[in-house]
Amino acid sequence: MAVYTEVGEDQLAKFLAGYDLGELMSFKGIAEGVENTNYLLHTKRGYFILTLYEKRVKKEDLPFFIGLMEHLAARGINCPQPVKDKNGTALGDLAGRPATLVTFLEGLWIRRPNVVHCQALGEAMAAMHKAGGGFRLRRENALGHASWKSLAQSAAGGADKIAPGLAALIQGEASDIEKSWPKGLPEGVIHADLFPDNVFFLGKKLSGLIDFYFACNDLLAYDIAVSLNAWCFEVDGSFNVTKGRALLSGYNAVRKLETKEVAALPLLARGAALRFLLTRAIDWLNVPPGALVRPKDPLEYLKKLNFHRSIRNASEYGLSA
Amino acid sequence: MAVYTEVGEDQLAKFLAGYDLGELMSFKGIAEGVENTNYLLHTKRGYFILTLYEKRVKKEDLPFFIGLMEHLAARGINCPQPVKDKNGTALGDLAGRPATLVTFLEGLWIRRPNVVHCQALGEAMAAMHKAGGGFRLRRENALGHASWKSLAQSAAGGADKIAPGLAALIQGEASDIEKSWPKGLPEGVIHADLFPDNVFFLGKKLSGLIDFYFACNDLLAYDIAVSLNAWCFEVDGSFNVTKGRALLSGYNAVRKLETKEVAALPLLARGAALRFLLTRAIDWLNVPPGALVRPKDPLEYLKKLNFHRSIRNASEYGLSA
Repeated sequence: MAVYTEVGEDQLAKFLAGYDLGELMSFKGIAEGVENTNYLLHTKRGYFILTLYEKRVKKEDLPFFIGLMEHLAARGINCPQPVKDKNGTALGDLAGRPATLVTFLEGLWIRRPNVVHCQALGEAMAAMHKAGGGFRLRRENALGHASWKSLAQSAAGGADKIAPGLAALIQGEASDIEKSWPKGLPEGVIHADLFPDNVFFLGKKLSGLIDFYFACNDLLAYDIAVSLNAWCFEVDGSFNVTKGRALLSGYNAVRKLETKEVAALPLLARGAALRFLLTRAIDWLNVPPGALVRPKDPLEYLKKLNFHRSIRNASEYGLSA
Repeated sequence: MAVYTEVGEDQLAKFLAGYDLGELMSFKGIAEGVENTNYLLHTKRGYFILTLYEKRVKKEDLPFFIGLMEHLAARGINCPQPVKDKNGTALGDLAGRPATLVTFLEGLWIRRPNVVHCQALGEAMAAMHKAGGGFRLRRENALGHASWKSLAQSAAGGADKIAPGLAALIQGEASDIEKSWPKGLPEGVIHADLFPDNVFFLGKKLSGLIDFYFACNDLLAYDIAVSLNAWCFEVDGSFNVTKGRALLSGYNAVRKLETKEVAALPLLARGAALRFLLTRAIDWLNVPPGALVRPKDPLEYLKKLNFHRSIRNASEYGLSA
């Protein structure tokens, strides 16, 4: 929600001289995206998003992200398309940061998704999973299940300041989940962060997916688990089974879930809840003085984690047998 | 630099139903404007800025600001134009805030203005002063010279934490300046906040003025004084007389300064420096916990104030006799 890196007009002019976009007519910092700095540009050729990658994004991962957006767009997934410079490169440097220009995607993100939105998300996610097949690059999930024990360790020192007993709980969960992690489920490219602010709608129609900067290779069903957490809980912390059913049936209609994926869903959802609980707890405990971003509440994800611990099987998410 | 008020899509849809703007296609918070929340909207009818007025803007002042933009636009000044709803009203309510829609203005603000920009600013300011003649509403300058003694009083308690001796200095200056404040200078509608981020350029050409939410009736030459401070000092704190000359000669070419305005300029510039020193000091001393905006450095304006105290006459700003 902030502009971390200010770009001067001279720097910008020099950067844009490398592209074939015509005269620059507008340039505004946008208050979206927690990890990177984003500007909206209007040039004679149209509207574009300029992203400056801040420290959390590793430069060596950028070819994966950029290549993935190109791969998906070429296969009919509506997502931002990297704009190449005059040398055919989509990855530049600006104000000391790696930077890319992508096409501007119309649409609004939905603050309070309803059943129709959840269904559309399920369909779009499955289509993205299918379209990701054959993408030639690989990226491990840096925040995948193998990382949770060490993240829990990092958070343990201060976790009880967030909630009494939290340090023991996250360490226990990280250890239990690692031992039970399912094997042999379908893998592929996942988005890994399909929260409502990364999914655009025009009216009731899903118009595109954005922000592929957590995308990686992992279990496809883990992507569903992340989104069940992000889309199907109400503000009061209760799980809305009608939304869960819509998301899962939307997904199933495009890519049929395997029986073992369905069986693994409670554990995957528990893991996904732990992953966001851990990173939010670490952010919460490490807000730098003068930070321009309010950390998100870790306890929201503690509630979700506890819900999934209470689940016996995936039918409780609304999945019909 | 922040979105203070989040707007939900249902609230927004209801608000926009009152306007004749066609389907909404995009809606993004923008990281500009320190006082209010601004969103960029794209609808079938074009691009618009939606402003939600936060607590610092008084609702009773909004008809002045909106009326002024309409008055200036009708007289050829390029500034945002308020968009009227189906009832012919330009002032609405959204998310518990007074809210307006204005047309989107192309252009970039210049982070490091040069002499050409200063000249163009002087010309545009003079044209705005002339165009403001005949505007039927009045608004006193809530941060004008009459307020500085009480602002100095408010800041005095903590001012020495910013710089030793600052409390005594600002109180002395507020008192001295009030006693010497010039009488009988031309008055009219001034912008009162013509900093670089409120002035747009396309290439070297000034394309428009924005953010009229400090506009008021005051001495016309006081507006020049504010901009001399904001545009003509270098990052190291030194006054650039070439930029000063460009700004003043640009102004003079469109509206000839009177002799007594020229004579008063050092005092007005000292007053303008004190005004921003005071409000920045107060903001600095009152940063709320969790603030999303970094306060601006008050000491920048202490240096400027001290420069103006050392000036003997307006020729030192680059004004030829």
